[in-house]
Amino acid sequence: MSRFLNDKLASLEPYTPGEQPKISRLIKLNTNENPYPPSPEVKRALAEMDKDAWRLYPDPQTGEAVEAIADHFGLTPAQVMLGNGSDEILAFAFMAYGQKVYFPEVSYGFYPVFAGLLGGEACQVPMPDLRIDPADYQHNDGMVVLANPNAPTGVELSPEAIESILRANPDQVVLVDEAYVDFGARSSLALLPKYDNLLVVQTFSKSRSLAGMRIGMAMGSEALIEDLNRIKFSFNPYNLSRGAIVAAAAAIRDEAYFETQCGRIIKTRQRFVRAVEALGFPVMTSRANFVFVKTGAGYAERLRARGILVRHWDKEQIRDWIRVTIGTDEDMEQLTAALKEIKQEENDEAGIH
Amino acid sequence: MSRFLNDKLASLEPYTPGEQPKISRLIKLNTNENPYPPSPEVKRALAEMDKDAWRLYPDPQTGEAVEAIADHFGLTPAQVMLGNGSDEILAFAFMAYGQKVYFPEVSYGFYPVFAGLLGGEACQVPMPDLRIDPADYQHNDGMVVLANPNAPTGVELSPEAIESILRANPDQVVLVDEAYVDFGARSSLALLPKYDNLLVVQTFSKSRSLAGMRIGMAMGSEALIEDLNRIKFSFNPYNLSRGAIVAAAAAIRDEAYFETQCGRIIKTRQRFVRAVEALGFPVMTSRANFVFVKTGAGYAERLRARGILVRHWDKEQIRDWIRVTIGTDEDMEQLTAALKEIKQEENDEAGIH
Repeated sequence: MSRFLNDKLASLEPYTPGEQPKISRLIKLNTNENPYPPSPEVKRALAEMDKDAWRLYPDPQTGEAVEAIADHFGLTPAQVMLGNGSDEILAFAFMAYGQKVYFPEVSYGFYPVFAGLLGGEACQVPMPDLRIDPADYQHNDGMVVLANPNAPTGVELSPEAIESILRANPDQVVLVDEAYVDFGARSSLALLPKYDNLLVVQTFSKSRSLAGMRIGMAMGSEALIEDLNRIKFSFNPYNLSRGAIVAAAAAIRDEAYFETQCGRIIKTRQRFVRAVEALGFPVMTSRANFVFVKTGAGYAERLRARGILVRHWDKEQIRDWIRVTIGTDEDMEQLTAALKEIKQEENDEAGIH
Repeated sequence: MSRFLNDKLASLEPYTPGEQPKISRLIKLNTNENPYPPSPEVKRALAEMDKDAWRLYPDPQTGEAVEAIADHFGLTPAQVMLGNGSDEILAFAFMAYGQKVYFPEVSYGFYPVFAGLLGGEACQVPMPDLRIDPADYQHNDGMVVLANPNAPTGVELSPEAIESILRANPDQVVLVDEAYVDFGARSSLALLPKYDNLLVVQTFSKSRSLAGMRIGMAMGSEALIEDLNRIKFSFNPYNLSRGAIVAAAAAIRDEAYFETQCGRIIKTRQRFVRAVEALGFPVMTSRANFVFVKTGAGYAERLRARGILVRHWDKEQIRDWIRVTIGTDEDMEQLTAALKEIKQEENDEAGIH
């Protein structure tokens, strides 16, 4: 850190992303990436781009992608904006509405970091049973941010629960972060016509296999989207590359591929959950492309030693849990076998036969 | 604007990027893009990428590109960081060091916007003759931001002048924005070993023909780069796509192509300046890939009517000037012919023969 850095930022604890190993022999179930490649239509659209045109700035309105997304969801283009990943959109929303922010204490680890960086008061709402209780979000004196399904638990909050929070906070923005919604959860987009305080954020990183391209999207009332664009045009007007705009439009149009791939991941998740429960590990009911498994301590390290990466947080309430991304069936079979082995080892070490 | 937006941002005037027209018949000399395509090595590296790997997050350290850049400039990797365009890096620097910021009143129009968005006090330093006087930057109570060469004038500040400002402000960061440095100006990078308060920002958008890919870079002491990374990892850890990382590394390695293309643009600029001066228009001495030409009022509109876009600001001091990006020789010949025609028209209208 330099002696020039302002005091507020000097004490900031940045977000720690999941490990991105250089060796590819590892089975990588730690950052919620999709095990399947992006749509062939995305690859075709990228291949057909005029490569000389990289010399030109992208469209700062990202019009082609915005229109395709608006079409897909039955919105107006003025209800949609794109970010350089959904993290950028979250950051813009914290800038716009985040003087005071309520979010669950066990959720996406970036929310408190955004609050710290952007000067907001972070109100972390306790979750005694790792579940979100809508009754806890009735304050109406700060933005509410809810990942739905929540991370890292994978648990879905019902549309009725979300609606009760929207209704209780008419003068506050309720941001629903739907990074994982496409794996069997219900989107809050259906509530947009009724609530001008609803902002829905989604990403192309998980269900559309484009984590490497950096594309997120926000959808809300035209006024909310205008706010976010005001910030974008005051921060980084050309926030999406020409390639990201082309890829986003092609990905959102290929609904058939999207449905098929999400369906495969849901099936693999169901199979994996059964296998893990059969081993005796408690599992949270997941509607995401990951599963939160209560293994007890030490499993993340032991899995790593076997070449399998999962995510683990050394944080009081969730220390005994690991978050496992749903990979291919083969990945999950290897993981299940490894979990079984480790459990056996532990039993042996404890003298249990 | 929504009723939820915080007051500070509600009164913000966002940056207006140059027009990005959809019709390509226009000669586009308004956003300082390079008329030549990116290096064939960039195209090859992008073509050879594993397209299935778009499903995976990029390296948040952007290691491959950072190492190639450090190599190129003789720095350590810890002295380099990449942004989603240099605008993102500028925004991070304003967050880190921008409680009070001094910059020239006629310069990159984004500086006051960053200050407004990120809560800094903007001190715009007067420029009676459109020139930067180092004597005006001796305050030492705020960050100094200097575009060098300056935009939209194209005028270079000498290394001695920059050094005098660094010396006068030992307790403040001096950010030198070298977006246009590769077209014949001298970089301040040579001063890095002597000054821990120097932050140099460059971009791949102009001299490396990658405006559409969004890549900027910051170079400075390891402590300054650590600060910027602290902000990046608290704002958007995966700020560069996999493609941008690959393209940056390939572009910086192809020095021969870079030198050739920059040389071509410099030659075209010299030819254009002679032609425009021959028409009787005053021109600022440019070391950038654009030229600031004093035409008098109304030229931007008249050029547009002839299918040529240039940049014009309706701002008191520079209302009589247009900023003209250096395109191909053919582009500049058409522009010169159009300028001659318009001048003739004006003379005819004024009854001058």
